[in-house]
Amino acid sequence: MLISVAEAEKIIARHARSWGTEQVPLEQSWGCILREDLRADRDFPPFDRVTMDGIAIRFERFAAGQRRFPVAGVQAAGAAPLPLADPAHCLEVMTGAMLPEGADTVIRYEDLRLENGEAEILVEGIHFRQNLHFQGMDRRQGELLVPAGRQIAAPEIATAATIGKSSLLVARRPRIAIVSTGDELVGVGETPLPHQIRRSNAYALQAMLAEKFQLAGHLFHFADDKLQIADGLRDILARFDLVVLSGAVSAGKFDFVPEVLDELGVEKCFHQVAQRPGKPFWFGHFQQQAVVFALPGNPVSTFLCAWRYLVPFLRQSMGQEEQAPLLAVLSEDVVFKPPLSYFLPVKLSTTPTGIRLATPVPGHGSGDLANLNDADGFLELPKGQDVYPAGTAFPLIPYR
Amino acid sequence: MLISVAEAEKIIARHARSWGTEQVPLEQSWGCILREDLRADRDFPPFDRVTMDGIAIRFERFAAGQRRFPVAGVQAAGAAPLPLADPAHCLEVMTGAMLPEGADTVIRYEDLRLENGEAEILVEGIHFRQNLHFQGMDRRQGELLVPAGRQIAAPEIATAATIGKSSLLVARRPRIAIVSTGDELVGVGETPLPHQIRRSNAYALQAMLAEKFQLAGHLFHFADDKLQIADGLRDILARFDLVVLSGAVSAGKFDFVPEVLDELGVEKCFHQVAQRPGKPFWFGHFQQQAVVFALPGNPVSTFLCAWRYLVPFLRQSMGQEEQAPLLAVLSEDVVFKPPLSYFLPVKLSTTPTGIRLATPVPGHGSGDLANLNDADGFLELPKGQDVYPAGTAFPLIPYR
Repeated sequence: MLISVAEAEKIIARHARSWGTEQVPLEQSWGCILREDLRADRDFPPFDRVTMDGIAIRFERFAAGQRRFPVAGVQAAGAAPLPLADPAHCLEVMTGAMLPEGADTVIRYEDLRLENGEAEILVEGIHFRQNLHFQGMDRRQGELLVPAGRQIAAPEIATAATIGKSSLLVARRPRIAIVSTGDELVGVGETPLPHQIRRSNAYALQAMLAEKFQLAGHLFHFADDKLQIADGLRDILARFDLVVLSGAVSAGKFDFVPEVLDELGVEKCFHQVAQRPGKPFWFGHFQQQAVVFALPGNPVSTFLCAWRYLVPFLRQSMGQEEQAPLLAVLSEDVVFKPPLSYFLPVKLSTTPTGIRLATPVPGHGSGDLANLNDADGFLELPKGQDVYPAGTAFPLIPYR
Repeated sequence: MLISVAEAEKIIARHARSWGTEQVPLEQSWGCILREDLRADRDFPPFDRVTMDGIAIRFERFAAGQRRFPVAGVQAAGAAPLPLADPAHCLEVMTGAMLPEGADTVIRYEDLRLENGEAEILVEGIHFRQNLHFQGMDRRQGELLVPAGRQIAAPEIATAATIGKSSLLVARRPRIAIVSTGDELVGVGETPLPHQIRRSNAYALQAMLAEKFQLAGHLFHFADDKLQIADGLRDILARFDLVVLSGAVSAGKFDFVPEVLDELGVEKCFHQVAQRPGKPFWFGHFQQQAVVFALPGNPVSTFLCAWRYLVPFLRQSMGQEEQAPLLAVLSEDVVFKPPLSYFLPVKLSTTPTGIRLATPVPGHGSGDLANLNDADGFLELPKGQDVYPAGTAFPLIPYR
């Protein structure tokens, strides 16, 4: 009944699904997953490009001993190209300009004296074709610049702008419902009674999806009332691609979520994973329509399960390219004896030798929300050992 | 005239300034810099909280040998507390519920048999006060949960929700103008002539500010026309807190930016830094009003300077807490002889022993925009050596 973290991950991966694609304006596309290849619309650079302000000459004249070149004109960036008609002359050229036809070498102003319409070259170390960025040197027309599957960041946006894409084809972002349950929870604007607390998990989930993928999550809350949960979820399952619940999945008398999901026709894939925190995690799907992550309601459990399972599921569903696994090294021995994978909150730093170090911030377990503020991620300590020795590298889930 | 990277950094830091504060709705606050301390509004947890579904008993009865406890009622999460009136009885209790008065120990359902209104304890290893998360165990009322200066992420949002903050005081985000210049640049929607290219730097800067801090940058473009640049910048300097220019700061005949800034009364702090790429970087300020970063227009130069100088400036200005320095280890020897700091594009990975490894993706210099897509950051190789040996750790500027 209790499955391993790896098994849970595998089952969830089988339910990854595409939600199609959408066009988004270039300026708003960061964080989205690109669903088209970006290819060079022409050579990069598109012409033999001057990379220093100075003069353009024909190198053979320099090699033959000529040092003074009458200036025949100025070639600005963005101007149609001038020819260097007389190879004994030079043209002033600006960074970003096209190399004038007939010239092949650029000498920067710092190495010149310009006087009376003549440029005198003051240095000897001039190389044929220097200070030029030749057409097609970086990429050839048609060549792949960014593959589909990339999460879009600033370099990809600059690249897309360069090839003339004012909108990009990205993975359609799923409609996500974030559902908290629990009679003990009141709204942020309310004053809780002594036995109540305010809702917080739904906000954490919403923020995480927004900052990670620019995804919008719609918030719902239901009391521990079977009928209310059933009515609410029936409606949600029909309208959303992804339903993330928090709470009411454990063994309690008012933990109606698994039962209600079953009655509504949501097929259970698993319930309970051999891990701490987050053991009561429930996962299922509703026909071909909605996928349901029912996360344990303790704040650290919700948060960890979302990072460990929901984020990879979203990546796969939206077609993001494989991520290199991250590892960090334990700074001290950790003892953990239950036969469970242990997700340890850690603070990250770098040692002077470049090792990513993880210092435990263990706190007081799955209810200790405040502890998450002091940590940067979770280290995944696999089940099957009692002592996790200092100096060993383990998989890392950073959340900042 | 040529100053070092460290000097440039120091001068810029002296011009860091607060732009005041603003209230933002909790849901939109991620990425902003918190400008108030978040303190516990009551104890965390606010009551002795049950952490397992099961029964609550008085431990002394168990210790005295009692194993069967009549169930006197159910204590749900979110319900006002019931008392355990008779210490020979038990109450069913749910995760998140308040511990009933008179009870002190919780036994989970898995360790019980419940039959005919009686709970029989099936295991012997019961500990006094087990399965409880005691009032104030995590944090005491008034205790600091999140210090001002934190960049807000999901844990801080959950914490703020818990203490009843539906909006947060954050650093006011500066009004930012992003100004590109250059006759060779046409719009994204236009078809460039053979000697033209499309604008891209402004989009990269805008995306970077948005994904990093949720900052909005307003885009402007001016041709290489002194009057146009002067008129445009005069207006911009009066309306914006921060002006980021790209291009026209080098030694070219049409590099009007330094001259125009001077004429408009912008005081130059430095021009040119001993680094590659980005050497022509110009920095100044306009009275007490606007700070001006005039970045070299080559795409890699603009991008590197923004990450290396603009991001730390924004962090300091908005009062973000100190960041632990990041280091990565070179995977191979790199030779670079000019007396300049060299910012090397690198691809990041983790070795099996947890070392953050940086593999050079050197590309073709400051014009090679496409190269940025294949890298994850820059390694800062300090000036003063010719060979940077494999296995050495250097400061890292990651941009993903």
